[in-house]
Amino acid sequence: ERVRELAYYTFYNGGCCYGAFEAIVAALREEAGSPFDLIPTDMMRFGGGGVAGFGTLCGTLNGAAAAINLVTSSANPLITEMMSWYAATMLPTAATNAYAMGNPTRPEGKTQLFTGDLGQSIAHGNLCHMSVTNWSRTTGFGSGSAERKERCARLTADIAVKAVQLLNAQFNNVFVPVESLPSDNVNCATCHKEGDDPDYGQFTNGKMDCGVCHVDPVVSPH
Amino acid sequence: ERVRELAYYTFYNGGCCYGAFEAIVAALREEAGSPFDLIPTDMMRFGGGGVAGFGTLCGTLNGAAAAINLVTSSANPLITEMMSWYAATMLPTAATNAYAMGNPTRPEGKTQLFTGDLGQSIAHGNLCHMSVTNWSRTTGFGSGSAERKERCARLTADIAVKAVQLLNAQFNNVFVPVESLPSDNVNCATCHKEGDDPDYGQFTNGKMDCGVCHVDPVVSPH
Repeated sequence: ERVRELAYYTFYNGGCCYGAFEAIVAALREEAGSPFDLIPTDMMRFGGGGVAGFGTLCGTLNGAAAAINLVTSSANPLITEMMSWYAATMLPTAATNAYAMGNPTRPEGKTQLFTGDLGQSIAHGNLCHMSVTNWSRTTGFGSGSAERKERCARLTADIAVKAVQLLNAQFNNVFVPVESLPSDNVNCATCHKEGDDPDYGQFTNGKMDCGVCHVDPVVSPH
Repeated sequence: ERVRELAYYTFYNGGCCYGAFEAIVAALREEAGSPFDLIPTDMMRFGGGGVAGFGTLCGTLNGAAAAINLVTSSANPLITEMMSWYAATMLPTAATNAYAMGNPTRPEGKTQLFTGDLGQSIAHGNLCHMSVTNWSRTTGFGSGSAERKERCARLTADIAVKAVQLLNAQFNNVFVPVESLPSDNVNCATCHKEGDDPDYGQFTNGKMDCGVCHVDPVVSPH
């Protein structure tokens, strides 16, 4: 719960990517002190709005993944779990909605963007643009609205909490991945996988949901 | 040229994202020493293969953007320029092809993946998956081939060099952005922009090329 509070606070101080990264590092500073007091967390500000506003990789995932990799040399399975969970989960979670509607901690002088309950949506991927657009179309709030920005503050808290849960599970030797790859990714990868022969479709890579962009694989070059 | 050499070397030590980040920080260590000797550059290993192999944001861009943000508080225009340049440029560049075909520096015990010239392609975006697939289909080398991996080593060098050129330009007060947003992004954004009213298309965000995924905007929900 401390990380949820920290992440909500830090979003208001510097956005989604910085927020997730700084919250986790701040929790480590509180628990362990050095060397986490030496990390220049400002460096992760670049990830906001899907990297400098591009709408690519969600900044909460970028910041949380960097924090995971900062504390474990076996980061890949945890990040895979976090990314898969993010793409398939109704967000923001009820827990963070409840926290934000209560008495959330914010930096001095910052006014809470929206104090009410917020609708949830599934991102279907890890891109800022997909995540924001699916949420906007589901809830009816525009991408420039205060509600949407508040939604991203709450996601920052959700993803930071998830990352810390995964790190704790690994540390306690109880991490078990429960998320699976999208079925499209599994089916298409029968042919479209990393390999040596592009004539048989081996020109691709990744763990994302193919059908989200390749709406009609017969029409899209196939 | 020192950064090209460093980045090629570091790719062979830890992949694209770590490679770009560590190369730029290593150059800073060589020039300035502290505090750049305190940065735990291993934390950026997570970005390899488009974040833990997901195929999302290209690791070279993620690592280079973090390095840019580490040294300037005005990172956004430089990162925007770098991302736009990446999406529109034939890569790997002739300069890095020539370097790699010469006498490239690699970590002890590492065998160069491919020593010859490599074909070029345009990524049309910032995603690992788009970048790799476009290159594989253009050149005929599979996504799992040694040639493709070598291509990513050369891109690591190209993107690190670009980032340092942009940082130097800003430091010398001669940075002028020359890349423009994709025309689709400009046209679609007449309606589809960040705003308050999703009924008029204001449920989106970003600086990417809309048409790459939204192949037929009349068929895709419109």
